[in-house]
Amino acid sequence: MSIKLTILGFNSALPTAFTHPTAQLLNIAERHFLIDCGEGTQVQLRKAKAKFNRINHIFISHLHGDHVFGLIGLISTFQLLGRDTALHIHGPKGIEEFITTQLRLTESNNSFDIVFNELHTKESVLVFEDDKVEIFSIPLNHRVYTNGYLFREKEKPRKLNMDTITAFNEIEVCDYQNLKNGKDFILKSGEIISNDYLTFDAPKSLSYAFCSDTKYKPDIVPIIKDVDVLYHESTFLHELKDLAIYTGHSTAKEAALIAKAANAKKLILGHFSNRYHDYKPLLLEAQEEFPNTILPEVLKEIKIKE
Amino acid sequence: MSIKLTILGFNSALPTAFTHPTAQLLNIAERHFLIDCGEGTQVQLRKAKAKFNRINHIFISHLHGDHVFGLIGLISTFQLLGRDTALHIHGPKGIEEFITTQLRLTESNNSFDIVFNELHTKESVLVFEDDKVEIFSIPLNHRVYTNGYLFREKEKPRKLNMDTITAFNEIEVCDYQNLKNGKDFILKSGEIISNDYLTFDAPKSLSYAFCSDTKYKPDIVPIIKDVDVLYHESTFLHELKDLAIYTGHSTAKEAALIAKAANAKKLILGHFSNRYHDYKPLLLEAQEEFPNTILPEVLKEIKIKE
Repeated sequence: MSIKLTILGFNSALPTAFTHPTAQLLNIAERHFLIDCGEGTQVQLRKAKAKFNRINHIFISHLHGDHVFGLIGLISTFQLLGRDTALHIHGPKGIEEFITTQLRLTESNNSFDIVFNELHTKESVLVFEDDKVEIFSIPLNHRVYTNGYLFREKEKPRKLNMDTITAFNEIEVCDYQNLKNGKDFILKSGEIISNDYLTFDAPKSLSYAFCSDTKYKPDIVPIIKDVDVLYHESTFLHELKDLAIYTGHSTAKEAALIAKAANAKKLILGHFSNRYHDYKPLLLEAQEEFPNTILPEVLKEIKIKE
Repeated sequence: MSIKLTILGFNSALPTAFTHPTAQLLNIAERHFLIDCGEGTQVQLRKAKAKFNRINHIFISHLHGDHVFGLIGLISTFQLLGRDTALHIHGPKGIEEFITTQLRLTESNNSFDIVFNELHTKESVLVFEDDKVEIFSIPLNHRVYTNGYLFREKEKPRKLNMDTITAFNEIEVCDYQNLKNGKDFILKSGEIISNDYLTFDAPKSLSYAFCSDTKYKPDIVPIIKDVDVLYHESTFLHELKDLAIYTGHSTAKEAALIAKAANAKKLILGHFSNRYHDYKPLLLEAQEEFPNTILPEVLKEIKIKE
């Protein structure tokens, strides 16, 4: 089991010929989630050979252009491709007006429903869940209302130990679900067989946290505790700490401090200021606090495994 | 003297990794006009090495995404670049709400004024003029309210013939403007010297017409009569004439018929349906009616000369 993350773009502010604003495609339990959607995201999705009709949920962090200006174009392309299944857009209050105004003025006849889930609280809330995945908001602190998102596999069933199970002739297929759920088995004789003897531990539930854009905000640590991979913005080097505070961003050192405090397994930096052409100093600064830090790579799939 | 046209994108509908929706940069008398602004136009402008701060007027044909979804991103980039001069946006009714809603919801603090010039008539009107250039709308017939634009150099002054002028000792510098304007000169003796003898004909005033998107609409011919270069959409081959009518587009043959009737000097085709990967049949179809037809080339500057 693994989560697959494809970073489609990680640059802040204006797109150029060689840089792309924030967007990520996350495959978790074969659900395909798009996170943020800067201008040009649909072209990056094409380059990633993403299947457009598998994207049913889009999570927008905040209404700044470099995170959302590509959304209307993607919706328009969904229409042109004849999409007929509902699209769910989770994002800050205002995103519904943002999109519906554009749809109305471009006289779009939508072939599919768009379901908006507008967030407005400053608490972490459950944004989406199904039988395999749960997604929580991570309240961030930026110049405008912003949320990160925590994507987590739900607890998985225990694995059957067929060697021990078949040794008892009386355990039948209809009993398996109870065993997977951790229940002990009671033989006809009344003897109790411990679940541990009949099953193996469930595979670990994996998780991914996306945190962009935000000031240094240590109170998110409990929400992302023990996360497998954390993407945390690091717009500046720590020598520009004052500018980071002023603009509502974090430094590479601060991103690493969050990863360390949260006991994350891996940290991916991103959202670098356009002033940086060489990202190595940002990486080195973060690695001083949190060695397992990496730089983002556009269109390279990252596997998040146990 | 010349007009320089750079096509930034000419594809219809959805952008892909290798195609770009409609946008053109026109340099006429050193005024830099942007025509339409599909998603990704700002990146195409960078590739064209355009000077962003020289673009003061943007002309939008209609509110379909492939002609306008890049506009908010470009405005946002203007802000980030610290622009402080006014930006004039000419386009269909609704464009002001389209842009201002997005600016409001993204909490943009504009560093410069945006002056909207919303068109709503079905007549050709003067959209803009200054001392050297005049621009008229070309009412088109598409699924939504649409205008093309005719860009025309104003009539230029006649050129002084210094050989003949200096032969008359009594013609002074302060008389030159009258001569450029075509007036005869009266010598102190009372003798009238014909302007023709003292000046050469003015350079021809050049013109460019942009017509996209539209059904075949022959009543635009008088507006674009004798235009030097006509860009006319040709979404389909004529064998798909019914589909062209249904979707509000033209065929290559129809674009050529318009060019021929208007006595244009050159025709550029564009806005091809995504079904076509080879544009040669569209070119050949048009050339049967209007031989001096060419295909568009992205980022290649076309000089429009006498």
